[in-house]
Amino acid sequence: MSISSDTRADISRFWSTIARSAEIGPGRPGGLSRPTLTDADREMRDQFTDWCREAGLEVSVDEMGNIFGRRAGREDNLPPVMIGSHLDTQVNGGRFDGIAGVLAGLEVVRCLNDVGHVTRRPIVVVNWTNEEGARFSPPMIGSGVFAGRYALDWAHGLQDDEGARLGDELARIGYKGRLPCRAGEIDAYLELHIEQGPILDAERREMGVVTGGYPSHGMRVTFSGQTAHTGPTPMDLRRNALVAGARWLTAVDDLGWAFSAQDGKASGSRLAAWPNKAGILSDTAEAVADVRHPDPMTVRVMAERMRRDAQAAAAIAGCTLRIEDEWSWGGDIFDAGLIETVRAEAVRQGWNWRDIKSQAGHDAYHLATICPTAMIFTPCKGGITHNNAEDCAPEDFSAGLNVLLHAVASRADR
Amino acid sequence: MSISSDTRADISRFWSTIARSAEIGPGRPGGLSRPTLTDADREMRDQFTDWCREAGLEVSVDEMGNIFGRRAGREDNLPPVMIGSHLDTQVNGGRFDGIAGVLAGLEVVRCLNDVGHVTRRPIVVVNWTNEEGARFSPPMIGSGVFAGRYALDWAHGLQDDEGARLGDELARIGYKGRLPCRAGEIDAYLELHIEQGPILDAERREMGVVTGGYPSHGMRVTFSGQTAHTGPTPMDLRRNALVAGARWLTAVDDLGWAFSAQDGKASGSRLAAWPNKAGILSDTAEAVADVRHPDPMTVRVMAERMRRDAQAAAAIAGCTLRIEDEWSWGGDIFDAGLIETVRAEAVRQGWNWRDIKSQAGHDAYHLATICPTAMIFTPCKGGITHNNAEDCAPEDFSAGLNVLLHAVASRADR
Repeated sequence: MSISSDTRADISRFWSTIARSAEIGPGRPGGLSRPTLTDADREMRDQFTDWCREAGLEVSVDEMGNIFGRRAGREDNLPPVMIGSHLDTQVNGGRFDGIAGVLAGLEVVRCLNDVGHVTRRPIVVVNWTNEEGARFSPPMIGSGVFAGRYALDWAHGLQDDEGARLGDELARIGYKGRLPCRAGEIDAYLELHIEQGPILDAERREMGVVTGGYPSHGMRVTFSGQTAHTGPTPMDLRRNALVAGARWLTAVDDLGWAFSAQDGKASGSRLAAWPNKAGILSDTAEAVADVRHPDPMTVRVMAERMRRDAQAAAAIAGCTLRIEDEWSWGGDIFDAGLIETVRAEAVRQGWNWRDIKSQAGHDAYHLATICPTAMIFTPCKGGITHNNAEDCAPEDFSAGLNVLLHAVASRADR
Repeated sequence: MSISSDTRADISRFWSTIARSAEIGPGRPGGLSRPTLTDADREMRDQFTDWCREAGLEVSVDEMGNIFGRRAGREDNLPPVMIGSHLDTQVNGGRFDGIAGVLAGLEVVRCLNDVGHVTRRPIVVVNWTNEEGARFSPPMIGSGVFAGRYALDWAHGLQDDEGARLGDELARIGYKGRLPCRAGEIDAYLELHIEQGPILDAERREMGVVTGGYPSHGMRVTFSGQTAHTGPTPMDLRRNALVAGARWLTAVDDLGWAFSAQDGKASGSRLAAWPNKAGILSDTAEAVADVRHPDPMTVRVMAERMRRDAQAAAAIAGCTLRIEDEWSWGGDIFDAGLIETVRAEAVRQGWNWRDIKSQAGHDAYHLATICPTAMIFTPCKGGITHNNAEDCAPEDFSAGLNVLLHAVASRADR
């Protein structure tokens, strides 16, 4: 009834899809620059849907541009097992972040096709729109709307730096589908992802069983002041929004250092002021920052500290502020039973694995709020990611791919 | 031999040129957005040269795009008297900053034409290229090359945010002239400018005799780090250039407050990081800041403090830095004799005037290094400038225009 216990994924076939993806939206040497809903993203989506159809999957696209490749089950009305991640990248992104997870899903269905096995439940491979948040903030929007966390209209109205709207860009690249972006019943969601951290590589582990994510909290703040000449305007009459933003990101960095001994982090990642020119004080500054910490209560405290630091920064600079948006994820939200399925496969196949927590954001966090969810981490060199130097070898995916294959098959036959 | 002592400038004629200029490159309501070498700047230059030719001036353009409108003198080989300022604006600029000074020069020659008086020396009305530095940093480039402070090739190679080069943009708008950008002998340079500060307006003065400028020092610094994921990257492995820039501008603001009781200022005006996106640490950040103080030694100390603050900011953020460029101006550099000429005219005409120091940068500072130079300030409402709310009434220019007219005439007949 199930696949043979020694069925193995075809690493070189999987690797060839990684290599093809690495040609679409080239960035700095060795990397990719394929932000969501760009022409490069469209080209990658077209390639992915071609692959899905070649593998016999039924392709559908929802209103958020999420792409679903569905493999029918023997009892096709049962809730499906889903495998997903994202094909978009940061502007200085790598070839594996997110991509490996989507293409791993494709490899799983190709393996099942090879052995001619039809699982009891349907299997759906998913590419989620805008996981990175590099072009439209916040990140993980496609899976967030799917899971009911965000409203569709709100997501469609998000604007990039040039004022283009997410909904319009979906339509422009031909990926604004008609399928409602709303989850039905799902049996399980599994996501393979490179670790994006140095632990597996440093310990020479072949894979990680992700038991949860570091609680994380991010926010986007707009500071408002008034333009004025940098020369004659006395310090006490200034309302320089750029200074408010700079002071906030400085305070956020201090916060990160204060909690760094317990593995806490705080990151200023964006400061966009206007006019942002020599000789003039800026009247607007948009800033983005986030905090992460293994302990949920500490993240709540850090988030509140970020808010108060923003108020203090605005006050010193004579500006007002508005918190435009906040987002959070993480915690011990993955499903104990599904985690145990993954662990059992890792043991059975004899890999050198460990439990691990994710410190990054993943679509799986949104899925975990609506269905049993687990993740598999694969090693990446030095943990370097969101950088063109992100690097993996084909064999880095052997454990993860094969555990994913068997975990999916056993779950889908359950 | 000279003009009649009661000859008066035609304020409504002057105001009509201000109103026409205010139609070219509209910005926010009431303001202008006419950065140097844009299409709007070209249109204004075309209008200005038309006016010059209508007033019988011989127009020439030098390699830096500086425009000279020359009125012949009776002894036409004598060094000329120059009147100048700039027609470019900040991106959120007003209708008067710089513009009033160029158009005041035009009004002076129109007055001399009206009364049919040919001065002994020639008179040259000048529009200097890129005074604002809003598009190409540093400011006051056209006058700086003219005065020998900057090299022509260096200035032509400056790039704007989109990578366009100043020399190419000069050619594109048709204002890369053939005249060498090099000052010959100049008898005197006079510049009328709105105060850009609140003093004249607050004291209800009709004009100011500018005796010098606050010593000022600016610099442009590039911080270099490495992109990485905002999540898993430990604080001690980060090289976030955005944080380096934010820390520097925070320190610069602190510096301004520390010296504010003695009327010192320190301004962070620009911070441009890359990729500057949520989820990723930035590997580059360009920042611009300047300090100003009435005392030259204090400005030297403040400038050195800025440099060390930049080093400290880079160190904490794990980045390297390069000071790309530094500039300074100000001090008691104006000509005592020419200042006295302006003062004497203000007294003779019976205006309510005072001596004043400029806190802004002006082309006159570069000219002062090569010829006797003086400036006249006119009031502006509340001292608000580099903002679309910049405002003046026609009568605010009565004193300045008439003092300029007679000071120029007497100097040119000397």
